[in-house]
Amino acid sequence: MIGRGRTEAFSDGIFAVAATLLVLDLKVPEVSSDLLGALLRQWPAYAAYAVSFLTIGIIWVNHHALFDRLRSVDRPLQFLNLLLLMSVAAIPFTTSLLSTYLQAGHQDRVAAAAYGAVMTVMGIFFGSISYYIGRHGSLLGDPTTHSRASQLRFILPGAPVYAAAILLSLLDARLALLVYGALAVFYAFLPVLER
Amino acid sequence: MIGRGRTEAFSDGIFAVAATLLVLDLKVPEVSSDLLGALLRQWPAYAAYAVSFLTIGIIWVNHHALFDRLRSVDRPLQFLNLLLLMSVAAIPFTTSLLSTYLQAGHQDRVAAAAYGAVMTVMGIFFGSISYYIGRHGSLLGDPTTHSRASQLRFILPGAPVYAAAILLSLLDARLALLVYGALAVFYAFLPVLER
Amino acid sequence: MIGRGRTEAFSDGIFAVAATLLVLDLKVPEVSSDLLGALLRQWPAYAAYAVSFLTIGIIWVNHHALFDRLRSVDRPLQFLNLLLLMSVAAIPFTTSLLSTYLQAGHQDRVAAAAYGAVMTVMGIFFGSISYYIGRHGSLLGDPTTHSRASQLRFILPGAPVYAAAILLSLLDARLALLVYGALAVFYAFLPVLER
Amino acid sequence: MIGRGRTEAFSDGIFAVAATLLVLDLKVPEVSSDLLGALLRQWPAYAAYAVSFLTIGIIWVNHHALFDRLRSVDRPLQFLNLLLLMSVAAIPFTTSLLSTYLQAGHQDRVAAAAYGAVMTVMGIFFGSISYYIGRHGSLLGDPTTHSRASQLRFILPGAPVYAAAILLSLLDARLALLVYGALAVFYAFLPVLER
Repeated sequence: MIGRGRTEAFSDGIFAVAATLLVLDLKVPEVSSDLLGALLRQWPAYAAYAVSFLTIGIIWVNHHALFDRLRSVDRPLQFLNLLLLMSVAAIPFTTSLLSTYLQAGHQDRVAAAAYGAVMTVMGIFFGSISYYIGRHGSLLGDPTTHSRASQLRFILPGAPVYAAAILLSLLDARLALLVYGALAVFYAFLPVLER
Repeated sequence: MIGRGRTEAFSDGIFAVAATLLVLDLKVPEVSSDLLGALLRQWPAYAAYAVSFLTIGIIWVNHHALFDRLRSVDRPLQFLNLLLLMSVAAIPFTTSLLSTYLQAGHQDRVAAAAYGAVMTVMGIFFGSISYYIGRHGSLLGDPTTHSRASQLRFILPGAPVYAAAILLSLLDARLALLVYGALAVFYAFLPVLER
Repeated sequence: MIGRGRTEAFSDGIFAVAATLLVLDLKVPEVSSDLLGALLRQWPAYAAYAVSFLTIGIIWVNHHALFDRLRSVDRPLQFLNLLLLMSVAAIPFTTSLLSTYLQAGHQDRVAAAAYGAVMTVMGIFFGSISYYIGRHGSLLGDPTTHSRASQLRFILPGAPVYAAAILLSLLDARLALLVYGALAVFYAFLPVLER
Repeated sequence: MIGRGRTEAFSDGIFAVAATLLVLDLKVPEVSSDLLGALLRQWPAYAAYAVSFLTIGIIWVNHHALFDRLRSVDRPLQFLNLLLLMSVAAIPFTTSLLSTYLQAGHQDRVAAAAYGAVMTVMGIFFGSISYYIGRHGSLLGDPTTHSRASQLRFILPGAPVYAAAILLSLLDARLALLVYGALAVFYAFLPVLER
């Protein structure tokens, strides 16, 4: 059993670095004229950047809300948290993938599905953490703060929704990106996640 | 409502990583002779690095000054802060853009305008945070510390000044870079931002 | 003598950045068709990413467990810690090396051995820190927490095991990667490392 | 006037990211045979990595020792600290430069001199911070901890020594790298820097 302070510091570091590394997916166009046009044409890169940045930010906000309830962190929870962080740190890769193939104009549905797949994995690990905490009340500062209903609030909006978005990706990649963005904004204001 | 501690830690992480990633815009010249000359010729890269590093540093100092007044952070403020951080994390991209085209010697005014556009967006989000805090005094530790005058001190030197600098960019990109640098130094010592 | 707080903050930063930089080893395939096939064919990159991410995570957990026992940090310990962090920060390089040559299908045993060599060096520094702390009980908050048996628990699973894995690498690179992964999971749950 | 906590957190972030970004200077050799030979031939890259990592680590240790004496941080000190961090964050660039040209076997003395130039600038800013603190005793927790002798201990081993190493670089780049490494180890154990 260890205090939650350093786990939060390590997690905050991963979240912050993963979000900032997204900027490496924005490429300087190499053109000899009409830089403005070239910049505007790579709008999918900006859209993917914004959606992924906000999504990582919102996962961080909810991670925060979840870990704030804890009194201590045990080994299995530490390991589940590492798995969650591993999926979060992969987001700059799938963002780059989606941005590249949205601009290429082909194979973009595969890229959008891969993007959704990593989000689904992330949602599974997030839900697992919530479920694990619910089953080990001794980790909580105040066990009443993490009821069965509370668990569901962390599980339901995650993996199931992103899994559904994978199916949507197979229809239209741009629409899928729009949905990923809408999900981030939606979760940001979702009142049920408030304590 | 959540405490401001972890929000500051996450923000500090984004600011620190964004500032340090600027070094990736400094490229090792590939030459077989006269390395010194090649290094000196890429002076716009060093100038852009210094201006952006100081600007991110100064935004961080002011972010610090603003959040120090807070007692807690609510969801909308959390979201506004994410939008601010998203614009800060984009600065390494526009810095690379400006540095590349200043060295190319063409299309540099478009690049300088894009640099200013991201700074303007950043200024708008910074001003929005200040305005939002002013309207929600319950978030403040001591409501008297964030008066209407105080709000204006955080809003006025931001978006409007950078928007004006975009116009300047369309005349001369080097001059615009000089102005961006002067603004960073100016804000660093601006007494009105002191509490 | 200095408090351990800022040493932990600096170490957490290095661990978090090194783990997140691993994502840069995941490359967007440049294909005009069958993106799914191209993504699946680079499975060694994902395997190497997961193994290295978990390994860095587990080193971090154990670093945490070790430094939690300390009351203060002296200069030699500070220096040993820097050497440990230097080896941890090199893991994205050997991960990229291993991933590249597993996909190339040749020279992969050399790459796997190089991966193991950096892990062995890391294990040597980790063991040295444990040994040094054991010899300087005045650094400990409670000297009884770091007995001779406790030292061995931090030394034995590190360098000797990874050195043996180098030999295995010379036989089969994929098997070696599997063993590196198994080691990370094994250490994650190793009960002897619990306080 | 602001507390020193968040300034330290931001500084720790820059130091940790700059040190970890050094790994990007280690390149995976692209060879079809004799990977071992190719890895060994790029020894200057490993040497430059180790020297720069330890140097950044030691600057961090001394930054720590210096800021530990402070009670608060004012605007000019904040600005001087930003300038110091700006020079530290540039070290991955000069490290890459030195590593590249040591391997190229020509123009390496120019690269070593550029490496020393950034270190000298860093030393000047570090010395300026020490000097500034000495002149503004009100920033100190206990003014007697930062005497004139103490200031000199932070100033003398920095800029003057690195400036001398620039001259040495013009004679032999490998020797210069060796001296930069020796300086890092020397400062790590320098007893006069202990409080």
